Amino acid sequence: MPTRTRFAVIGINHSHLFAMTDIVRSGGGELTAFYAEDETWAADYGRRYPAARRVSDKREILEDETIALVLSAGIPSERAATGIEVMRHGKDYCCDKAAFLNREDLDAARRVQAETGKIFSICYSERLLEPGAWKAGQLVRAGAIGRVLHTAILAPHALRISSRAPWFFERRHYGGILTDIGSHQIEQFLTYSDLESAEVVSSQVANYAHPEYPEFEDFGEVLLRGRTSSGSECSASIRVDWLIPPGATRSGRYRTLLGTEGVLEIEHSSLILSTSRGTERLDCTDTPLDFGRLLVDDVLNRTQTAMGQEHGFYASELTLNAQMQASRAGYLQTER
Amino acid sequence: MPTRTRFAVIGINHSHLFAMTDIVRSGGGELTAFYAEDETWAADYGRRYPAARRVSDKREILEDETIALVLSAGIPSERAATGIEVMRHGKDYCCDKAAFLNREDLDAARRVQAETGKIFSICYSERLLEPGAWKAGQLVRAGAIGRVLHTAILAPHALRISSRAPWFFERRHYGGILTDIGSHQIEQFLTYSDLESAEVVSSQVANYAHPEYPEFEDFGEVLLRGRTSSGSECSASIRVDWLIPPGATRSGRYRTLLGTEGVLEIEHSSLILSTSRGTERLDCTDTPLDFGRLLVDDVLNRTQTAMGQEHGFYASELTLNAQMQASRAGYLQTER
Repeated sequence: MPTRTRFAVIGINHSHLFAMTDIVRSGGGELTAFYAEDETWAADYGRRYPAARRVSDKREILEDETIALVLSAGIPSERAATGIEVMRHGKDYCCDKAAFLNREDLDAARRVQAETGKIFSICYSERLLEPGAWKAGQLVRAGAIGRVLHTAILAPHALRISSRAPWFFERRHYGGILTDIGSHQIEQFLTYSDLESAEVVSSQVANYAHPEYPEFEDFGEVLLRGRTSSGSECSASIRVDWLIPPGATRSGRYRTLLGTEGVLEIEHSSLILSTSRGTERLDCTDTPLDFGRLLVDDVLNRTQTAMGQEHGFYASELTLNAQMQASRAGYLQTER
Repeated sequence: MPTRTRFAVIGINHSHLFAMTDIVRSGGGELTAFYAEDETWAADYGRRYPAARRVSDKREILEDETIALVLSAGIPSERAATGIEVMRHGKDYCCDKAAFLNREDLDAARRVQAETGKIFSICYSERLLEPGAWKAGQLVRAGAIGRVLHTAILAPHALRISSRAPWFFERRHYGGILTDIGSHQIEQFLTYSDLESAEVVSSQVANYAHPEYPEFEDFGEVLLRGRTSSGSECSASIRVDWLIPPGATRSGRYRTLLGTEGVLEIEHSSLILSTSRGTERLDCTDTPLDFGRLLVDDVLNRTQTAMGQEHGFYASELTLNAQMQASRAGYLQTER
């Protein structure tokens, strides 16, 4: 796609940024510059995108009027402030999830977003950047399984402990396992069930296996209930963990939607759809991922086609509620 | 196996009884007689076990001193009373789950069991009569996945509505979806996690798709937490439903245990074990199901090898708690 807008990056602390960059480029964005404090990430990113210029002062990006959009995968605790700064400089913003670690940051971002009219988008990659999950949204909206009654997601993650920077284990920087990973699944629940509102019924976090990192949480679960605009009810059970055994070739990841007319099981690049017409496996390898194109559309047209503005904020709010009201198990935490 | 004890049947209202009968026969039980009010079930059962005599009065079984054990898959609301009657006649008892629809029946059975010293066993077939689930118990006890931290079970069931008798939809007879189906999964949680105690954190039931049966529940979910005798914590999320689309060749059933050292995914006749040594699929087709042999052992030796007496009662108690405290969604119920 020809260049439709110019974008830059402020904050590189997670590999998610590569996929985010690629999807915006595929949607017509031209990456012009990046700012990163971490030298290793900056070097990796520069190698991957040699046409982009590394700047030593983020003001070079913030004050560049040719740049319309800023991406970020900084340390989670910095993402909200970066977004606020970006919006105040008249640019749109898209950061890796989780965008918010506390309610104050969320409130501030909501306020500045309303004041500036700029976009504060959150890249929930497990839905937006996986072909199975993206196609699932299309099928569900088309009524393939009727009304969605239940979302069940087991989301184990590989810790790869030696690859993690110190901030990864520090509560003030990563926020807790539900804020971090769980934000994905809560956002999926809102999206697939097309909810108007939802509530956290119960949540729990634990540090079961990593006492050497007392602020870390390696397990979390949430039970949610929701309601559509027509008053229909549904629910979700979500489990996240960092407990995939190193060496396992299968993660135990499982994601399924139960509807009034069928069941949809979501894998990374395929779907299994069971309805009264039988069960079929749908290969989604060739499903186009539209998030980047839609985000660039929104930047150009001031629309909300990639993600409703309130949707991202509301998913974050629910996520914070889940984290804040979670009971704790396993090793005791030193800090909350 | 040669005959080691003689048993009979009182109450036939569910096809589970065939598998129960077969497993006890395989363990050395000789089926001598059966009592059933339902003519269709009686005819089916008589054809399957022609050597067994149908009796027209259950006292012929209760007062037969050569019969040591009575099985039942009567209407759920009658199973507790039948068991009490059986125990009072000096015989051991094993019924299909669910054994109890209310706390009063459970209390009465506990009392009579303690008074008589007889066995009140509950056949939780999804663990006891499936080779994958049975083998899973052996592996977990042997430490294959370390300590079990989480049990997740999605248990869709096929309604096959035309095959169901009227009692199936009547609350006073079936008790609610958690009492009925959910008892399986709650018992599995207790067993696989080797729990000393557990609590229902939250539960919900719904009638989402069957307004023509106002007392029916087609959906239920439970979040539980438990504690082992050494004080370790764990949890479970369970979903049950009667919403498998007719015609689907896949149910969406999924069952997995997350441990400190690995993940075990349980299918009907196989297991997928993921540990630091990699992922392997274990075919359990040839795993012997020991429940019948152990139950006959217990009848002969006054032991509790097939299932601890308190285990079955405690699983029932938790199940009743889940049902009684469940919030409700979907169509309104006319009766509670």
